Amino acid sequence: MIAGVSTTYTIAVIGGTGPQGKGLGYRFAKHGHDVVVGSRAADRAVPVADEIRERLAGVAGAGEVSGAANADACEQADVVLLAVPWDGHDELVGALPLAGKTVVSCVNPLAFDKRGAHGQVIDGGEGSAAERAQALAPEATVVGAFHNVSAVLLWGEEEYVDEDVLCVGDSDDAKLVAMDLARAVTGREGVSAGKLRLARQLEPFTAVLISINRKYKTHSGLRITGLPDRD
Amino acid sequence: MIAGVSTTYTIAVIGGTGPQGKGLGYRFAKHGHDVVVGSRAADRAVPVADEIRERLAGVAGAGEVSGAANADACEQADVVLLAVPWDGHDELVGALPLAGKTVVSCVNPLAFDKRGAHGQVIDGGEGSAAERAQALAPEATVVGAFHNVSAVLLWGEEEYVDEDVLCVGDSDDAKLVAMDLARAVTGREGVSAGKLRLARQLEPFTAVLISINRKYKTHSGLRITGLPDRD
Repeated sequence: MIAGVSTTYTIAVIGGTGPQGKGLGYRFAKHGHDVVVGSRAADRAVPVADEIRERLAGVAGAGEVSGAANADACEQADVVLLAVPWDGHDELVGALPLAGKTVVSCVNPLAFDKRGAHGQVIDGGEGSAAERAQALAPEATVVGAFHNVSAVLLWGEEEYVDEDVLCVGDSDDAKLVAMDLARAVTGREGVSAGKLRLARQLEPFTAVLISINRKYKTHSGLRITGLPDRD
Repeated sequence: MIAGVSTTYTIAVIGGTGPQGKGLGYRFAKHGHDVVVGSRAADRAVPVADEIRERLAGVAGAGEVSGAANADACEQADVVLLAVPWDGHDELVGALPLAGKTVVSCVNPLAFDKRGAHGQVIDGGEGSAAERAQALAPEATVVGAFHNVSAVLLWGEEEYVDEDVLCVGDSDDAKLVAMDLARAVTGREGVSAGKLRLARQLEPFTAVLISINRKYKTHSGLRITGLPDRD
């Protein structure tokens, strides 16, 4: 365990072969958590787990990284990170064994057209991917976090990304897990940012960052100012 | 004119007697712009203009500040800032003489209940206050900006607020005006953050900041990381 990690978890990264899931899995394992990369089939997950493990060779205190089919990954885990595309989200999430788990959704339901990225309208504007996951898995505790972190920077060379991880949820305990996991990405605790329904704001905010990236040819991120120092 | 201001404008602040409008009017005038505080009746606007002018006594290069009824304020202005409540927005904005003007909306359609602040659903999730203003004033050019800046900090003592002003719009020229005006608040150019429809994201993001404020007992703000230096 590395200093600054108050707890180490076994984290299933569902959608762990996509760029966001792979990048977050890498950061979590680098920080000492054990990571199970999940995919529809174990033989797609294992090569990604191998790739992450190779990057972590020689990193003192890194956690273990393995690959498994999504359901098997969930069963091994304390915490399940949903990093799946919105397209097919409900069918995939509805089939996972999530009862009793802390589930962190970083799913961004975005659409793209010639005017750029924008948020998809979920449930007539009164929903979000995170709330949908909670409805599909009522015996799990869902929080929203890690929506706005650039996959490129997650897989990059910087020790930490210069961003804040905003965490929303209706359970304070589950939100604290996500806030703790944020240390692996930013080097400090995530920001407690309200109830789960505010995922409606965090998810499509990614479209704003994508627009900024396009304009300024960068990988932008979000920082919250005015907060007390957090470690 | 103060160094760093590339253009000075005459700005009508509609809703200038509210905290956001008053705070922005103060910052604009402090930076050298002329400000006309607008209210439903001139005799409500004038005392607020007087209060701003008193705060600016002795500030070298400050612009002129006056008060007027909303329609008169618009007619004197190059730029119209909409800082009105969402409740009654359409009736008020629809009656303003906005044709040919650059209109900046910082209107936040929020709702509050025992679970905190959240965004109101506008046009089934496919709208925003800024888009509504554009529809009501088709001969104006509407941009969205200044949604997320704390009124308390605007009226506070710090030279600039440690935040970024995100500017969205379909006209690059009008967006540049808002980006330029941002210098008065943050000391640097605003961030070009996409098309007008992304106001759907910026407006309710204020609910996230309000939730953070409540949790951490602070006045939080938004910074974008990864951008090139701007002056």
